[in-house]
Amino acid sequence: MGKRIQLPAGIDPHVHLRDPGGTHKETFLTGTAAALAGGYSCVLDMPNNQPPIADLEALSAKERAAAAAVCDYGFWWGGTAANADLAPQAAARCVGMKVYMTHTYGPLLVDDAPALVRLFQAWPAGRPIAVHAEGSATLAAILLGQLYGKWVHICHVSEAWQIAAIRRAKEQGFRVTCEVTPHHLFLTEDDARALGSLGQMRPPLGTAADRQALWDNLDVIDVLATDHAPHTLEEKRSANPPPGVPGLETALPLMLTAVAEGRLTLERLVALYHDAPARLFGISAPDSFVVVETGVRAAIRGDTLQTKCRWTPFEGMAVGARVLETWVRGTRAWGDGRILVAPGFGQRVRRGE
Amino acid sequence: MGKRIQLPAGIDPHVHLRDPGGTHKETFLTGTAAALAGGYSCVLDMPNNQPPIADLEALSAKERAAAAAVCDYGFWWGGTAANADLAPQAAARCVGMKVYMTHTYGPLLVDDAPALVRLFQAWPAGRPIAVHAEGSATLAAILLGQLYGKWVHICHVSEAWQIAAIRRAKEQGFRVTCEVTPHHLFLTEDDARALGSLGQMRPPLGTAADRQALWDNLDVIDVLATDHAPHTLEEKRSANPPPGVPGLETALPLMLTAVAEGRLTLERLVALYHDAPARLFGISAPDSFVVVETGVRAAIRGDTLQTKCRWTPFEGMAVGARVLETWVRGTRAWGDGRILVAPGFGQRVRRGE
Repeated sequence: MGKRIQLPAGIDPHVHLRDPGGTHKETFLTGTAAALAGGYSCVLDMPNNQPPIADLEALSAKERAAAAAVCDYGFWWGGTAANADLAPQAAARCVGMKVYMTHTYGPLLVDDAPALVRLFQAWPAGRPIAVHAEGSATLAAILLGQLYGKWVHICHVSEAWQIAAIRRAKEQGFRVTCEVTPHHLFLTEDDARALGSLGQMRPPLGTAADRQALWDNLDVIDVLATDHAPHTLEEKRSANPPPGVPGLETALPLMLTAVAEGRLTLERLVALYHDAPARLFGISAPDSFVVVETGVRAAIRGDTLQTKCRWTPFEGMAVGARVLETWVRGTRAWGDGRILVAPGFGQRVRRGE
Repeated sequence: MGKRIQLPAGIDPHVHLRDPGGTHKETFLTGTAAALAGGYSCVLDMPNNQPPIADLEALSAKERAAAAAVCDYGFWWGGTAANADLAPQAAARCVGMKVYMTHTYGPLLVDDAPALVRLFQAWPAGRPIAVHAEGSATLAAILLGQLYGKWVHICHVSEAWQIAAIRRAKEQGFRVTCEVTPHHLFLTEDDARALGSLGQMRPPLGTAADRQALWDNLDVIDVLATDHAPHTLEEKRSANPPPGVPGLETALPLMLTAVAEGRLTLERLVALYHDAPARLFGISAPDSFVVVETGVRAAIRGDTLQTKCRWTPFEGMAVGARVLETWVRGTRAWGDGRILVAPGFGQRVRRGE
């Protein structure tokens, strides 16, 4: 028999709910259901929809889609080479701006230096600029933040050199934060070979040394982020599989297993999945908690997931914990293996400013 | 009639003398003759030879080739993904390390972030790391210098956003220097269209706004560098013209013309072409000066040049100054329109350390 413990509910700063534009992969309803099932009370949704959330009409469409959410949510605005002038209006409706400095899924990409400068200059100093920045783009992003006095949030750190550079930047007082995903903490390029396209995401899985460097530098990492990026199995098994894997329902079981194995403390885990994202992104949700059972012997199974795509790169992996209940603002929203709240229960996060 | 004035002889930190490996384009003898004819007593030669100066044997071959020089000279070492361990030995024989972070002429390219980190970590802190870094690579280079405590020298700044970013980096105390070429100061993309392949170089000619930004921010620019990069006319007019233009013999006439037009002071020009490179790169050559005639009406002519390639992107441009004599360490090395010293007169620069 396992042991029931109550922890703060999670806040995931990096999900792709695909709604609107990719609702065959996920919707605000199925994606936020997956969040609740995974122990999260709040998710921040990325802007690489089709069309991207890079103009105010597209943002309005996402606001309408999000009305079906069963957990709380916020939005990232998509910066482009052409929309720096919309920054004030976008900042009033979004948690932060996402800039895709290197190529990944979707049409958003800003790899032109003067366009990057325009975006960094236009965005409010108090709000995060989250960057998808592989390779040297990580360095460019950090410098842009420093030169223009902005807060840069490095998404899904995946390589040893990268976390070492971020450590140095933090030591020098740069205003930079970063996140790590469970897949980069638990999988490597060896798994990617075994998984085939199901193990393909951006940034790609690293070497065993990269993975170890992430664990060794957990003190430099601010936030755990799932980068929940569902695609259908058919798409992933096609000739041109899109990058991305789901992650909302597997993050806490995997991380709690790591706690049980002594790889990090429970306090550090709570800081990564709740305290830091709440503080950094200005999210307050009283009476939001998760009841987990630890000490169990279970295996991750894609066909038990709430996410519409119903597969996982962690298929079959043994975990020692499971999410029993998720409470949001005093209401039991997930329990007994099902969603207990109606579409629209989720509220949009408001910053206290 | 013009007016004769004596000025310090030039030190050009950025030339490509193509020797060994491309001696049909230029040799140490013809390239240093062009330097003398242009008013330069010293040039620092870049490592993108064929094969590149990225191992100690190649460096030895360049040392042998340079024995024919008629002006003083030094070498840049070529950093690669594989040669960080040679840094101490290379630093003892070279002025600094050149890193090609974006693609240009020749096989040297390091665009892999961990390899860049290795090079920056290995290179001695007191010696420059010169970077060919177009676009966001400029930002990555500056940050690498700051994170790893190294001196970064940004070659051939060509864009408005770039000089603005370097200004901010300097204001924040970053150890960064930069150079500008005459072709980026005097030509634009309009000229490139008219010149065809003769106007192609890396980085490419910018917009009129880019060019104006360079003039408007001359106070941020440390050094004038010709980026003398000769190719034969046949090569430049071929189906796949290589990037690069000669510049050693046109830099001072063009810049002195700008002085006459009030675009910069003579003191500022001397700082750019002599004082700053002497101080930064540790080059001392007493009794080295140039006698120029100002107030003349002349036109630049490729067929009068000492460079082996004998063409210029400035063909026909009116200039108001010409180089009459160049003295190196007390000897008149150029005068009466010809080289007055024998091959081997040139000495290798020694740092005072």
